[in-house]
Amino acid sequence: MSHRTPSLLDRLSLNQETVRQWSLPELADGCARAGVRGVGLWRAPVQQYGVAAAARLIRDAGLRVSSLCRGGFFTAREPGERAAALDDNRAALDEAAALGTDTLVLVSGGLPPGSRDLAGARERIADALGELAPYAAERGVRLALEPLHPMYAADRCVVSTLAQALDLAERFPADRVGVVVDTYHLWWDDTVGAQIGRAGGTGTGGAAGSRIAAFQLADWITPLPEGVLLGRGQLGDGSVNLRWFRERVEAAGYRGPVEVEIFNPALWARDGTEVLAEVVRRFRTHVG
Amino acid sequence: MSHRTPSLLDRLSLNQETVRQWSLPELADGCARAGVRGVGLWRAPVQQYGVAAAARLIRDAGLRVSSLCRGGFFTAREPGERAAALDDNRAALDEAAALGTDTLVLVSGGLPPGSRDLAGARERIADALGELAPYAAERGVRLALEPLHPMYAADRCVVSTLAQALDLAERFPADRVGVVVDTYHLWWDDTVGAQIGRAGGTGTGGAAGSRIAAFQLADWITPLPEGVLLGRGQLGDGSVNLRWFRERVEAAGYRGPVEVEIFNPALWARDGTEVLAEVVRRFRTHVG
Repeated sequence: MSHRTPSLLDRLSLNQETVRQWSLPELADGCARAGVRGVGLWRAPVQQYGVAAAARLIRDAGLRVSSLCRGGFFTAREPGERAAALDDNRAALDEAAALGTDTLVLVSGGLPPGSRDLAGARERIADALGELAPYAAERGVRLALEPLHPMYAADRCVVSTLAQALDLAERFPADRVGVVVDTYHLWWDDTVGAQIGRAGGTGTGGAAGSRIAAFQLADWITPLPEGVLLGRGQLGDGSVNLRWFRERVEAAGYRGPVEVEIFNPALWARDGTEVLAEVVRRFRTHVG
Repeated sequence: MSHRTPSLLDRLSLNQETVRQWSLPELADGCARAGVRGVGLWRAPVQQYGVAAAARLIRDAGLRVSSLCRGGFFTAREPGERAAALDDNRAALDEAAALGTDTLVLVSGGLPPGSRDLAGARERIADALGELAPYAAERGVRLALEPLHPMYAADRCVVSTLAQALDLAERFPADRVGVVVDTYHLWWDDTVGAQIGRAGGTGTGGAAGSRIAAFQLADWITPLPEGVLLGRGQLGDGSVNLRWFRERVEAAGYRGPVEVEIFNPALWARDGTEVLAEVVRRFRTHVG
């Protein structure tokens, strides 16, 4: 038996929303058959199946959970709403620990109704991270702040660039709060290469220790659909230089899972096995 | 008769796409009746009416043309396509001069089909500006580079932030190449305040002379419609702190027209006079 560095394909992880048509058992079975070693999970289907049962199912299939989506929604001003959000994030951290993943992806939240105060909303995110970080650390889970595309700034996430995410994350130790590099959200930004270096601690001004907690792939295609949520492209179908991103995160020291997360009803309408086979082919061609 | 500084309301300009239901004569008459002193025009309706006739119509109504939309589309790689785009921009500059405006708004162009090279596309924009700047200067028209929201980066404009627009503009003299500050495109960016200062030459690192060639207002509302082009909000209906933007551009020395440019079929379905009256009311409340 020879020892070898894990190949890029060994690091491929399939986010379950890419094949939403699959149940959790179908996901576990489908990935195991395709030789895909990791899955990214979402809270709702995991809760529906049962957290402990889902953890066992994934483990028994020989798979690893690369990340759990999602915590966050930290921007409410009303104290009761805010306390409820923090409680829900503690539950999400418990679930992440039970599933054996070290990464909880955070969608930070948009502007509260009627508010125009982006800076205030961003400060409330920092406050929430401060409250949750010790709880997360006790469970061995890192809070992974995800910058979302600026088109989501009003209603989903006021953290729109990798620079903003790092400005928030760097207030905390690197092993407690990290960031998500998702090509769909960040591809347009001419500063993203430098910020990936900063996230890795390899650029100037970076804090010690890598902040890159997750690396997610989807392509950018147009026209965007109404609501702009379900229009992500299969790898290679769009405008994103995926290989460039992979090389940048590797140059920044990242060697973790490479998760494919595509929200697209056209993929959900097809046979899941076929979709996963296409993901693997596209991954080899456009990322590897 | 007393001398006074023009009030903010005197600087209000109505971009004609806000009231697309109006013909050019209706626009001229409607603005004059409402006491609005300026209009922003688009090439297609002006060409259809006749450039000289449109210039006369607007002048005779006592109005000033704040800007002409739009030149640009500089990112083609194919030489014939590129030459055609430059020719069309020269025609747009001639039209701007004939209309008596000193501002041609530029939508720079997206990625060519199949391309993923954002940096290359941005360089071709710089090349085109270099070719057009002398022609523009001879006609007394400034090229006004407009950063568009990052959701348009693939198909409309690879210049997505005010910082990127200034990086390009600052390669040329300030009186030849400026930038457009449009709240709809820039509101989400936490660096925009500093970049407005840079554009005004009032921040550190700014070149001498203001780069702010135009200031345009629209609000950000959700959900975004399919294609994300016609979903702009009436002033005050959305997430943008319009007054903050107005104060920032004034602090940067800008005293030019304040143009309201809202693309929204709900406004087009209403009586134009009523829409303009609403714009004026909202402008007083949310901008003044």
